[in-house]
Amino acid sequence: MPATSKLNSTSNSAVDGPQSDGAQTCEVALIGFGTVGSSVARILCERSNTHLRLTHVLNRNVARKKVDWLPPSVQWTENIDDVLTSDVDIVVEVMGGLQPTEDWIRRALESSKSVVTANKQLIARCGPELIALARQMKQQIEFGASVAGGVPVISGLRDGLAGDELFKIRGILNGTCNYILSQIESTGIPFATALREAQKLGFAEADPTEDIDGLDARAKLAILARVGLHCSVTPASIMARSISAIDAVDFEYANQLDCTIRQISWAQLTAESKGDELFAAVQPALVNLSSPLARVEGSQNLVMATGKYGGETVFGGHGAGGHPTAVAVVSDILAIARAKQAGMSYAEQSLEKTPAVTADFTTKHYLRFLVKDQPGIIASLATILSQCGINIDAVVQKPGCPKSHLPFLITLEECKASLVERALQQITSLDFLVQPCLHLPIL
Amino acid sequence: MPATSKLNSTSNSAVDGPQSDGAQTCEVALIGFGTVGSSVARILCERSNTHLRLTHVLNRNVARKKVDWLPPSVQWTENIDDVLTSDVDIVVEVMGGLQPTEDWIRRALESSKSVVTANKQLIARCGPELIALARQMKQQIEFGASVAGGVPVISGLRDGLAGDELFKIRGILNGTCNYILSQIESTGIPFATALREAQKLGFAEADPTEDIDGLDARAKLAILARVGLHCSVTPASIMARSISAIDAVDFEYANQLDCTIRQISWAQLTAESKGDELFAAVQPALVNLSSPLARVEGSQNLVMATGKYGGETVFGGHGAGGHPTAVAVVSDILAIARAKQAGMSYAEQSLEKTPAVTADFTTKHYLRFLVKDQPGIIASLATILSQCGINIDAVVQKPGCPKSHLPFLITLEECKASLVERALQQITSLDFLVQPCLHLPIL
Repeated sequence: MPATSKLNSTSNSAVDGPQSDGAQTCEVALIGFGTVGSSVARILCERSNTHLRLTHVLNRNVARKKVDWLPPSVQWTENIDDVLTSDVDIVVEVMGGLQPTEDWIRRALESSKSVVTANKQLIARCGPELIALARQMKQQIEFGASVAGGVPVISGLRDGLAGDELFKIRGILNGTCNYILSQIESTGIPFATALREAQKLGFAEADPTEDIDGLDARAKLAILARVGLHCSVTPASIMARSISAIDAVDFEYANQLDCTIRQISWAQLTAESKGDELFAAVQPALVNLSSPLARVEGSQNLVMATGKYGGETVFGGHGAGGHPTAVAVVSDILAIARAKQAGMSYAEQSLEKTPAVTADFTTKHYLRFLVKDQPGIIASLATILSQCGINIDAVVQKPGCPKSHLPFLITLEECKASLVERALQQITSLDFLVQPCLHLPIL
Repeated sequence: MPATSKLNSTSNSAVDGPQSDGAQTCEVALIGFGTVGSSVARILCERSNTHLRLTHVLNRNVARKKVDWLPPSVQWTENIDDVLTSDVDIVVEVMGGLQPTEDWIRRALESSKSVVTANKQLIARCGPELIALARQMKQQIEFGASVAGGVPVISGLRDGLAGDELFKIRGILNGTCNYILSQIESTGIPFATALREAQKLGFAEADPTEDIDGLDARAKLAILARVGLHCSVTPASIMARSISAIDAVDFEYANQLDCTIRQISWAQLTAESKGDELFAAVQPALVNLSSPLARVEGSQNLVMATGKYGGETVFGGHGAGGHPTAVAVVSDILAIARAKQAGMSYAEQSLEKTPAVTADFTTKHYLRFLVKDQPGIIASLATILSQCGINIDAVVQKPGCPKSHLPFLITLEECKASLVERALQQITSLDFLVQPCLHLPIL
């Protein structure tokens, strides 16, 4: 079918709603028919008043994927060439993985199709190149679903807050970690138990490394840093620390400090660095109970963006799940369809800084020790800290713990994380330590 | 200057940043140079890497408004024709009021200029006509600053959540009311004192009627209902109740119910009404302490949108103030400039329902009485409520109050507001009432 024939009436389509103004139909192909893919198809099916038409569904072993609620006109295929050689306007990639996904997205753009993807790892790694390719081909690539699922934070930072000069982004970007930490907090169970329960309930993967160790969140943070702070950084350049060392006792101590503990993704430009240096890390951190970050429960996501003019703006909601993620995908499809409709013909590209990335934030610090009790412990620790130029803020010890496994807490006044790490290198050799000191920033 | 000459280099402009890609300059005129207007000018001045150029500032008695930090090329004027006959691409209206503002905006669109406005009353009243006029003239009109200041909720609902089917919007849209209610809550002062203090601090106007009585918030709710729920409703059709009847004792009772009290703007489509009926009201209401709405402090704004697919999404931040509002204005300017740049040439118009508006929500209810104590009070009230088919949930009485001014509380099980109002019409004649019963919904 030649492209121009799409200007004709499309009222035969079961996916289309009523045509109100003779607008051009936009044909959509879906690559991947898992949880998100089938939700996208479902929403496209149920929407009225749109000019979107689902024409292809691609999946491995596609036969077992076929559903009866999509119109018979939809072509089910395992062959990407069926999509690339078709008249499709928008290719929606919700298959995941780095390959062959990247190749397919490139080929789609090269075939003059716009692309919507939910693939955070791919966009974090090759977003700028793919955007440049889209621009070159006068197409668009959108990736709103790659961060925080249904929460429209990509468009919020890029468009809604375009008038501000953002310098700080903090967020809870991984629902699995937030669920596990919330569970430890509310029930007092150990980390390993909370993880097992999360796995049983489907909130954590069989191999939870990506989530627990912060690799998922740092890909998302790299995307947010690019969109909101105009900083081009790779996920690998962002420090990520696991939440696995967090224990129920840490929530007790955090609570005494009017705080809770969350996996926080944090990227910040400082006035001094003038864009040459980006502070960025994904790590468990103490957050004050009065912060919106502290109130994120279960698998919810939240992003706080701070700007020079507008102050703090918060975006929160369902960070995962088929339907919420599909909402983000369909919103992107609609944005591209609208732009095509209006004759907009290229992807934008903002000027980007490529700063050095450091995790050396200046904050207060939380040091939680587990020791075999003996005289002189505080004296030894205080001496080392003081030699490193670090000031102790408070020493807190929960009563009633066994002398052989005695947890206690030292909080430090504001100083650079690197200074604390240097002190901890000396502290690690002290013979009264039962396990390595847990070091968390206090936001 | 002919329009085509704007394609030339613009590096002479003090407002422009460096030109990276030879993009076309977009000329901007500012109508109104008060708090928001001067913030907009300031941001345009300080931005780098944009193609925006401020060319006109219009204000009454413009001489006293002149500042030295804008480039000398800016034309200061009191005459709208100077703007309308110029080459300006975008007219930014931050003057407020209904007239001559509406005329000027119409004339700007008719002169083939796009418009950005922060004017909630105007957009709530004539948004659809102005959008239609813009569309007809192949121009755009944006109004992101008209609701919730710097919080990008208009673009969030319209674009970011476009893929969802929203059916409920609840929000805290008036910072003055939220500040006053927060103050009564935290200090226990009476309403009148809290209002006076808010006026002294500049958080409330000398005439606070618009805010206190919910007229400001219902204009914003009408805009959100249009953008998010595709319902065309007039502000006047939305019930608005004042917060002035709220007393410190109500926060004590609310707290016993794990709630606080906030001015809530609420619009909802129900599945049964199929778009024929929109529930909408602005009123003080009890909100559970676990809700994000309960945690909005001071003059912050927050909007919760609920969709069929994505569930609840939250947008929060600074709802007022020169700089945050200016961020929304500049974001809109940039959106229009981008679209012009890309050759997009018309304003969108979504299909709208025009439902009947009702405030007859089905909720639990809070009835707070102030009575002269005497035997049989509960019996009389219970009889009337029961005759109206209303079930009492609980009766709560704070100890230690004077018998002549005894406050107590009755909560009701879920029922329609109209049922409760009918019962209250009978109750109002009872001789033990010291003041009319305060009736609030419990969300």
